[in-house]
Amino acid sequence: MEAGLFTANNVWMMVCTGLVFFMHLGFSFLEIGLTRQKNTVNILFKNVFIICVGLLLYYIGGFNLMYPGFEDGDSGFLKFAGFGLPIPENGLTPDYAGGGYTYWTDFLFQGMFAATAATIVSGAVAERVKLGGFMLFTILYVGLVYPIVGSWQWGGGFLSSLAYGEAEGFYDFAGSTLVHSVGGWGALIAIYLLGARIGKFGEDGKAKAIPGHNLPLAAAGVLILWLGWFGFNGGSVLSADPAGTSLVLVTTSLAAAAGGVSAFVTSTILYKNYDLTMFLNGILGGLVGITAGADLMSPNEAVIIGILAGIIVVLGIALIDRLKLDDPVGAVTVHLICGIWGTLAVGIFGDKAGLDQFLVQLAGIGAAAAFCSFFGFIILFAIKKTMGLRVSEQEELEGLDIHEHGMDAYADFRMNQH
Amino acid sequence: MEAGLFTANNVWMMVCTGLVFFMHLGFSFLEIGLTRQKNTVNILFKNVFIICVGLLLYYIGGFNLMYPGFEDGDSGFLKFAGFGLPIPENGLTPDYAGGGYTYWTDFLFQGMFAATAATIVSGAVAERVKLGGFMLFTILYVGLVYPIVGSWQWGGGFLSSLAYGEAEGFYDFAGSTLVHSVGGWGALIAIYLLGARIGKFGEDGKAKAIPGHNLPLAAAGVLILWLGWFGFNGGSVLSADPAGTSLVLVTTSLAAAAGGVSAFVTSTILYKNYDLTMFLNGILGGLVGITAGADLMSPNEAVIIGILAGIIVVLGIALIDRLKLDDPVGAVTVHLICGIWGTLAVGIFGDKAGLDQFLVQLAGIGAAAAFCSFFGFIILFAIKKTMGLRVSEQEELEGLDIHEHGMDAYADFRMNQH
Amino acid sequence: MEAGLFTANNVWMMVCTGLVFFMHLGFSFLEIGLTRQKNTVNILFKNVFIICVGLLLYYIGGFNLMYPGFEDGDSGFLKFAGFGLPIPENGLTPDYAGGGYTYWTDFLFQGMFAATAATIVSGAVAERVKLGGFMLFTILYVGLVYPIVGSWQWGGGFLSSLAYGEAEGFYDFAGSTLVHSVGGWGALIAIYLLGARIGKFGEDGKAKAIPGHNLPLAAAGVLILWLGWFGFNGGSVLSADPAGTSLVLVTTSLAAAAGGVSAFVTSTILYKNYDLTMFLNGILGGLVGITAGADLMSPNEAVIIGILAGIIVVLGIALIDRLKLDDPVGAVTVHLICGIWGTLAVGIFGDKAGLDQFLVQLAGIGAAAAFCSFFGFIILFAIKKTMGLRVSEQEELEGLDIHEHGMDAYADFRMNQH
Repeated sequence: MEAGLFTANNVWMMVCTGLVFFMHLGFSFLEIGLTRQKNTVNILFKNVFIICVGLLLYYIGGFNLMYPGFEDGDSGFLKFAGFGLPIPENGLTPDYAGGGYTYWTDFLFQGMFAATAATIVSGAVAERVKLGGFMLFTILYVGLVYPIVGSWQWGGGFLSSLAYGEAEGFYDFAGSTLVHSVGGWGALIAIYLLGARIGKFGEDGKAKAIPGHNLPLAAAGVLILWLGWFGFNGGSVLSADPAGTSLVLVTTSLAAAAGGVSAFVTSTILYKNYDLTMFLNGILGGLVGITAGADLMSPNEAVIIGILAGIIVVLGIALIDRLKLDDPVGAVTVHLICGIWGTLAVGIFGDKAGLDQFLVQLAGIGAAAAFCSFFGFIILFAIKKTMGLRVSEQEELEGLDIHEHGMDAYADFRMNQH
Repeated sequence: MEAGLFTANNVWMMVCTGLVFFMHLGFSFLEIGLTRQKNTVNILFKNVFIICVGLLLYYIGGFNLMYPGFEDGDSGFLKFAGFGLPIPENGLTPDYAGGGYTYWTDFLFQGMFAATAATIVSGAVAERVKLGGFMLFTILYVGLVYPIVGSWQWGGGFLSSLAYGEAEGFYDFAGSTLVHSVGGWGALIAIYLLGARIGKFGEDGKAKAIPGHNLPLAAAGVLILWLGWFGFNGGSVLSADPAGTSLVLVTTSLAAAAGGVSAFVTSTILYKNYDLTMFLNGILGGLVGITAGADLMSPNEAVIIGILAGIIVVLGIALIDRLKLDDPVGAVTVHLICGIWGTLAVGIFGDKAGLDQFLVQLAGIGAAAAFCSFFGFIILFAIKKTMGLRVSEQEELEGLDIHEHGMDAYADFRMNQH
Repeated sequence: MEAGLFTANNVWMMVCTGLVFFMHLGFSFLEIGLTRQKNTVNILFKNVFIICVGLLLYYIGGFNLMYPGFEDGDSGFLKFAGFGLPIPENGLTPDYAGGGYTYWTDFLFQGMFAATAATIVSGAVAERVKLGGFMLFTILYVGLVYPIVGSWQWGGGFLSSLAYGEAEGFYDFAGSTLVHSVGGWGALIAIYLLGARIGKFGEDGKAKAIPGHNLPLAAAGVLILWLGWFGFNGGSVLSADPAGTSLVLVTTSLAAAAGGVSAFVTSTILYKNYDLTMFLNGILGGLVGITAGADLMSPNEAVIIGILAGIIVVLGIALIDRLKLDDPVGAVTVHLICGIWGTLAVGIFGDKAGLDQFLVQLAGIGAAAAFCSFFGFIILFAIKKTMGLRVSEQEELEGLDIHEHGMDAYADFRMNQH
């Protein structure tokens, strides 16, 4: 391979690595924006913790748990390639990974993905989770659950070779299931075990809106996430192949735009209100929805997937409320439900569509569901019974910032007391 | 063409696409920052709407209206290449567009530009425009007016071949006229038809400052826009040609810096005050000013263009006030007046300077002015007479956020009532 | 050299240039976030001024002062290659700078670095420095002190050839000393001459926390800086060499993560509190610490350097308080102390480790210390005795925004009076 091509490939992958890193600012802004000021420092702390610890865990063992070096044709479930970053001899040459990037880029790009799973959970449990318990959960979920599930597909494990009829294996391009649903299952289990925030459900049992305190940051978060998805999906081509990467950016952006408009129209029809947060969550739903098949879809199909994702977001958020679950940022709907939708869409639209593929996609969704909810439950239940998972009522009412951090996010402003 | 060069070109163009997308966050922050908190959700909603709908319209028809495939040497005015994205057979090969990028990248880069025109208008009409009317205007202006004007030059239409004496055609490298003035004319017509915000002009007829409510976001918006301009101008080279792109980044950044300093010095002399918003608008003026000729200028010429743009910004904002027009963010001055300045500067400085070129530049400015103000007026006047363009006095006083969105941008903070 | 490789190299360097530019938003957010709302406009103004003026000064003379064209083997101390940007004949060809980038990219990348030195000082002197005096200081420090020190190493001057025993010269990959300590020395001198903010030290002489007013922006600033460091360190490879750049991104990110976690753990042990600002400053300490040797370290060594940097940050901030110095954002600790640590680490860890190298590193630190503190003192002392360096007590109490700018950063919000 010519040096120019190898270099251009690696440049693109480093750019994408930076963009996926930047998504953590997007997640932080979104989560802050949609919650109350009194818990802002806590949210920032959690998110900064997740990035740093997630990356370190991936360096210590996660990368080698996720890419364990299953033999070709293996249908492995669990294997570990060792601690640290034992760079292979060809790790810095075009012989590594088809010349798409170096070993170092490989690690860092995947490492930036890893922390995402816990970040998704962070949004769902905001405003009432105990920091210590959440940190322990993060360590176990990012350090073990995420890389093990990932290894089944991206590491060459059993999902990637799950052939059935015409389907040659499970397909999840950039992680509708492997990243977003993994985070989403953790989020669902967590909000079930945690219970709703005080005041979320009235005495009549109806959900009440607890308005976010900083919508400019929420909107900025979504735009930053959209930009970050250029790297999340665009980098999942694993090289800078012009045809592949540029198609992926188009399908990704069209699905995002279609998801936003569709959620906006749907929510305007249902609620007679121009709801900004629905618009924003629709964009995210479109992004999550296209993620599993971003490289397989035509622009038209991407738009359809996005439109349906936008409708799903509006209905899903209503459903979560009906189930008396409290998800302050809509994480379960956006990441889990739209993640499932996107994974199934691979069987419905695009180059791999077909009933066999659809069934294999279902199987993959089921495998992730079983593993993540089982281990997520064990971890969170154990934390709940030992360290405790939820802050005291007083702390929740007065805010986690003062109690856990002794700080106020906006020291100079007077706040309304909620 | 070697694969490495094609790939590197396409990588650069995808990076630039991301940067131009990111400009929408810059515009949003700037517009929010310079207006009042009570209209913040409305501004966010408008901007998110513009991005999503703008991109979808460009996908449906805008791209093919703007790049209609005029025959070589044609001086076409209007043509349409069809709906959707009918990718040509060579669209993913180096044969397409000289190997600068793929067809998908081409569409997405141009699509990110398209929404800009409406975003410029959004700033000017902020705090009093009716959301429904503005959305309809956006659809027509971005869907039709912008791509038709663009086709005259970038689509190979009559402006691009408007030879006169030594001038071989109109020149507008990255859109001082085709993007910024197109938006600026729309903004000018709109604020004329809308009228000023309540309280903007006192009983003595003098303009009163209505201070923006979040200057950190305003400043962040300008820095993000500057960064985005790396893609806006740098990507307009339409490849990663090292000589061309790197010169463009230098002229762009020097003009921005010079524009800022010049506006700061000018406003300090005139008003005896270190005015942050003038500094920020000076930077934007420098950026708009260099945009038409960023590839033609030496660094020294870029600095001169920027200095003059900075002075123009300070005087232009005073002029708009004198004309009793109310432009909350200075959009007409920055995008229209500096856009005209930048377009004319191509006839004064740089590789194409000359009286013939200057006259051709004037002709191009005139053509855009006539078309945009005519159709802008028709669209906005029709909306005004049917759906209505302006919110009620009560809504304006109490804020658009509560009335149109039922939300508060900062739910936990007490506000002063303005 | 093939065109693809040259182009890919230049693309990477332009991306890095954009990222280093973006760091200025990071610095602004961090500085705003950690100070009080009443001085926010002033901080924004200073930072925007620094970027614009810094870039213009570098264009006028700084670049040619820093890269003066010392003869090979020369051990020059001061030389000037002339005003403006006299592009060499091969400046746009692969013959320039080994084909890593063009002359224009070279200038712009280095120009984005230049302003950093003054930005570091800006944070330390916040909330009490007179704007006029600070602007004059910026001009002299960025225009003269920074490029002269830089020329000693990166311009091929005497530090780069300071051989001693086995050491072949001083080593500072991306500027732990040449950028961060240069800024840090200026900051230290400045806060010594300025004195502490009113209320920082109680009657008992003990330091009191003056809480920052916007922690979301502070955290965003740090994440943006981390991203920017991809360009700061990644671009210092001066090409897109896959092996070199990707290693640098890995060491940089691991040191950042380790620095954050280490500062968090250290401060939790010492102060029994989950302190967000310590976590954030730990990340920055790790980044500054790895900067001198980011290309020399293994991932394991990067983690160790980061861990130690995190501990240094917590202890350093306590030390500065003990010395009755008032550094609102921790700039001296992060940039000077961690900059020294990172420079020394080159002699302790990685490919160049050894006692000889350690001593040479000490010599380089000493040379920068002597020059920067001497000229920094002269400049600042002269300003203090003539224009004055500090605002009046009334202005400090009421806020610099109203007095120097006649503006309020958040016009619609009621503030607590501090």
